[in-house]
Formats: sequence, C-alpha cells, structure tokens
Amino acid sequence: MIKVAVNGYGTIGKRVADAVSAQPDMEIIGVSKTRPSAEAFIAQKRGYPLYITDIAKKKAFEEIDILIAGSVEEMIQKADIVVDATPGGVGINNKVLYEKYSKKAIWEGGEGHKVAEFSFNASCNYTEAIGRQYARVVSCNTTGLCRIINLIDSVIGVKKVRATMIRRGSDPGDVKRGPIDAIVLNPVTIPSHHGSDVQSILPHINIVTSAMIVPTTLMHMHFLNMELKNFATKEQVIELIKTHSRLGLIEKSSGITSTSQLKEYTSDILRPRGDLWENGIFEDSISILDGTDLYLFQAIHQEADVVVETIDCIRAMMGDVKSAVESIAITNKAVGLTTIH
Amino acid sequence: MIKVAVNGYGTIGKRVADAVSAQPDMEIIGVSKTRPSAEAFIAQKRGYPLYITDIAKKKAFEEIDILIAGSVEEMIQKADIVVDATPGGVGINNKVLYEKYSKKAIWEGGEGHKVAEFSFNASCNYTEAIGRQYARVVSCNTTGLCRIINLIDSVIGVKKVRATMIRRGSDPGDVKRGPIDAIVLNPVTIPSHHGSDVQSILPHINIVTSAMIVPTTLMHMHFLNMELKNFATKEQVIELIKTHSRLGLIEKSSGITSTSQLKEYTSDILRPRGDLWENGIFEDSISILDGTDLYLFQAIHQEADVVVETIDCIRAMMGDVKSAVESIAITNKAVGLTTIH
Repeated sequence: MIKVAVNGYGTIGKRVADAVSAQPDMEIIGVSKTRPSAEAFIAQKRGYPLYITDIAKKKAFEEIDILIAGSVEEMIQKADIVVDATPGGVGINNKVLYEKYSKKAIWEGGEGHKVAEFSFNASCNYTEAIGRQYARVVSCNTTGLCRIINLIDSVIGVKKVRATMIRRGSDPGDVKRGPIDAIVLNPVTIPSHHGSDVQSILPHINIVTSAMIVPTTLMHMHFLNMELKNFATKEQVIELIKTHSRLGLIEKSSGITSTSQLKEYTSDILRPRGDLWENGIFEDSISILDGTDLYLFQAIHQEADVVVETIDCIRAMMGDVKSAVESIAITNKAVGLTTIH
Repeated sequence: MIKVAVNGYGTIGKRVADAVSAQPDMEIIGVSKTRPSAEAFIAQKRGYPLYITDIAKKKAFEEIDILIAGSVEEMIQKADIVVDATPGGVGINNKVLYEKYSKKAIWEGGEGHKVAEFSFNASCNYTEAIGRQYARVVSCNTTGLCRIINLIDSVIGVKKVRATMIRRGSDPGDVKRGPIDAIVLNPVTIPSHHGSDVQSILPHINIVTSAMIVPTTLMHMHFLNMELKNFATKEQVIELIKTHSRLGLIEKSSGITSTSQLKEYTSDILRPRGDLWENGIFEDSISILDGTDLYLFQAIHQEADVVVETIDCIRAMMGDVKSAVESIAITNKAVGLTTIH
C-alpha cells in the first residue's frame, strides 16, 4: 500500500484524501490543517489522522474535541509520498521539508511549473511521470484543456487553439471572494497564462487563451475553438470523445445547458459532493464550421477534475503501474467515475 | 422639429425619450405605458405626455395622480415617427397600427430583421436608411459588433470573426430573471444567432458567434477575435479606434478591468443613468498574435448603446441630414457623448 500524506486538507485536499482512501493500492496516513474548522471535523469523522503545522495550536483543536496526531513534519516522515494541497504560492515553501526527508511530492496547479520542473496530466504524459521525485498536477482549467486538445490533436490534428475561460468567482464555501455583480477580465491582457500552462504538457500546441471571472461558484465554462489539420465531422468528434473516460458528454436529450443543471445532475447520480471529475462537454455545442473549425463548450468543475489526475500521478511516481490506461481504469473504478451519459 | 412618439417607455424607451428631447431637431410628443409603475412617474416628471394601450386602465393611473393624455392610437396619429421600444416579440404586432396611419416606425433589436426588412447601424449604413418608412435598430450586442468589425474591415480588412458574448442575466431593475449561480449556454448550440444578425448589416463578413448568460446585471462582455486580411500593429488598431466616436477606449492607466468598475466610472463622469453609449474597448486587451490575429475584450452596455443609434436612425429616415458623420456629431453633442478617456 502506498502511504499518502495530504498536506492541506481544504477544497482539493479533502477530495484527494477521499479518492486515495478509495484506491486498492493506497492509504491515507495523515492530513493536515493549520487551524480548527468544519473541515477538521470532517477529517476526524473520516478517520484520517490529523496533523498540524504549528504544534502550539494543538490545544485549540483539543478544546473542540479534535484529536491531533502530531506535527506536519512528523506526518511527512511517515509518508511514501506527499500531496501538497496547500493554497497556491504556499506549497513551494514546503519543498524544503520534502527534500529534508527525501519524500516524493506532488503539488497542485496553484504552484507554477518550476516547483517540480514537471507538469502532469494522466492522459497526456503518464509515462513521463514514472519514478519521478516531484510533479505538479496542472490546474483544473489546464487539465480540462489538455484532455480534449491532446485527444483531438492525436487523432485529427490541431493547428491552432483559441480558448476563452469564463471562470467561477469563488468556490461555494469561500464567502469572502467576489465578484457579486461584475464580469472581471482576469487578466485584462490577451493571451492569459493558461495557454503557456497547457504548453507545459503539450509544448507543440499553438494556443491562445483568455479568461474572465463571473459571479458564480459552481464550475468554469470554456469556449473552445480548434482549427483542425484535417477535415472531420461532428459525429467523428463525438465518437472520439466517447472513447475518453474523462471526457463526459452531456447529451442534448438531458436538457442540460448550464453549470447549475449539470451540478444538480452529478448530485442526483450521487457522486460524492456532486463532483464532476470529467470535462462536461455539451454535445449540442460541438460544431465544425468552414470544414476544419471545431467549436465546443465544456464545463470544468474546479474542485474536482484534478483529483483523479492526482491519484494517477501518485501511482505513476511510485512506479508500480506502468500504463496510463491501467492507472486511469483503477482510479476511475475506485472513485466511481462511470460514464455520465 | 421631428415629432417622435416612443411606444413602450421601459429600459430602452425611457432612454430614447431623453435622448430625443436633448436633440435640437426633435421633440417627444408622447410616450406609452401599459400599466402604472415607477417609470410612469418618471415620464410625468419629465413632462412627456403619457398614453396608454388600454384606455380602460386610465383610472388606475389617475388614482395615483398620473395624468393620461390618451390612447396609444391617438399618440401615433400625432407623431411623424414612432420608436417602438415595446418588449421583444410585441413590437411586430404594432406594425398594423403604424401602417394604418402611414407613420414611419423604428423597432429595436428584440424584433427580427423581417419586421422592417432593413436593419440599421449609424456607422455602417446610415445612408441606406434615408427616407425609409421602416427600420430596425439592431440589438446592443449586434450594434457593438458592427461598430468595431466595420471599422477594422474598412481600413485593415477582416477575413473572419469569432466572437463570444458573456451576457448579463438581467437588467438591474428586472428582479424576476436569473440566473443567480450558473453559467447558462444561450444558446448551447454554436453558432448563436448574433453572427447572422451582424450579417443583416454587414452581409460580407464571415462571422461565428457564441453566447452565454452569467449572473450579473451591468453590461455584456465580448471576447472578439478577428483574422485580419493584412498585417497591423496594436498601435494602429488603437489609433483607429480613437477615430470612432462610439468606440470608447478604456485606457490601461484607468485600472478598469471589469464591467462594474466601468459602470462606476460612467456614473462618476455624470453620464445620465451612468450610461455607456460606446463600446467599452479595453486598451490593454488589444493584441495581435501570429501577425494577423487580432484579439480584444469590449464591454457593451445593454441599456444604452442602441439609444444613440436610434436617434441617428430617426434622423436618417426623416431625410434632412444626409450624412452619418453629421448626424452622429449632432446626436453625440446633444446627449453629452464625449470621449470617455
């Protein structure tokens, strides 16, 4: 069993911990929090040993009946691999700790490529991660872009990509962030950084991205245009999408045309936390115009799509499972990712 | 003086009435409401004679001290030209009334092209409107697209346009519409109808549009990509934009990167109702990539940009002012449209 520590039990960390626990070849040896919170109670309910950054705060946890197993440094020592899900920009500072104990570590997309000098997406570059000491699972948006672009590129050929990301303002639990009534260009400049982040995994792809933030919490929405190298039909693209287990096709007959209806659906099918691990590609949006210009809309659940990628990244780095197909199948089965259509 | 009646004193109608009143060559002879409301009080405060569709409702108005001048049919008879700003889909039913009294009429973009068999944008086809009996001022989004596309096409040449519209869910005063927490694909299919609406004015433009609705009220945001026929620089595009009085350039130094900050600004410069009559083009977003691929973001104030176009449309149809440049200058000066930067 691969012993996994999750440093940072927040939006992504708590999901990674549950996904690890569900795997046949992994176990959670500890998760960490900096201060008492509802999420600390959840960790305890799940039976995850809880470690804290500042051991002086142990009493504050114990006063509300949350047991503390020790310090984060102690947790690291017990792990084979650490998933660092601390807030973006914080994770890089933890690297010294992982180096100190020669532990493998994975960061999430809040950190830049340079934290690990290797960026990961299971469908694109699983084998390159085998045996690595450090890796970074790219952000939710980059993950969603890489999955579909790589698939279309490898089968049909992609000449140029233009992607516009309409991003959720905050996660549902984050009540301090906005906007409430604005469309915020973020960044106002074009291109946004997302394109070069895609190139950290798919360096040969010519891609221009732009991004803005809107007052919603549930999911991001991508408008995607791919100039294809070869002619293709809508039907071919749909069949291709159906072959990829992490591209969910939202069929026209479902009547779903928004992020909120999609979230309602993933809740109704009893996904944990209503999580959408796949790209939610709207079948009715898939269009090929002027012969080689592919267009589509896809919803990306910012809290969820990187979780399954992180599991595959753990498996690749530990080296026992050599193929992406095999790891993805194990991960999907364990968390309960079956087709959404 | 051109005698103008505004049939439908709502979001657009009340702005058109004020803009007409500000012109040196026009006057409001009446506006109409279907039922008592805050806007009916505003019409009375402004001194606009108020007419109602169903004269049987006269008492309901008089009970709250709003004087009624007569029926809509009586109003029509007194006008040289009627601006129909009734809700989309309603206006077409009023055509029989305008025909009955041989009155010129203008519809807004809520109606389709066929209502008048002629669609109008002052910068694009003013002279084609001269002397016409009927015209339709295209919607706020189409207006915003036509202004910038026509300018770039006429000087640099446009091979293909891709535009994504992130639309406000409702106007600020409309408390019954959503969404509250969703990104709604509207339509889910690509292309949206906006492209063919642009072609009702610029039939030679190859354009693909897509649209979604988000939980905000203030303005729409457009992400625009134009494949140019010739090389151009960012500086050339900026200079070109500065030559067009209805393309407002939001300079980088303003720090404005969202619709809400822009609305705050137009309110601070004491525009009536904080209206942005121009396209709000973000200078810092203007980019030319791969030599001939132009990108930019522009904010479109859904309540305002068609108002000045409607004034020019009135003037063209009445026939006294033969040039767009002349009419636009009169309109802009009268309402107070001076450069926003």
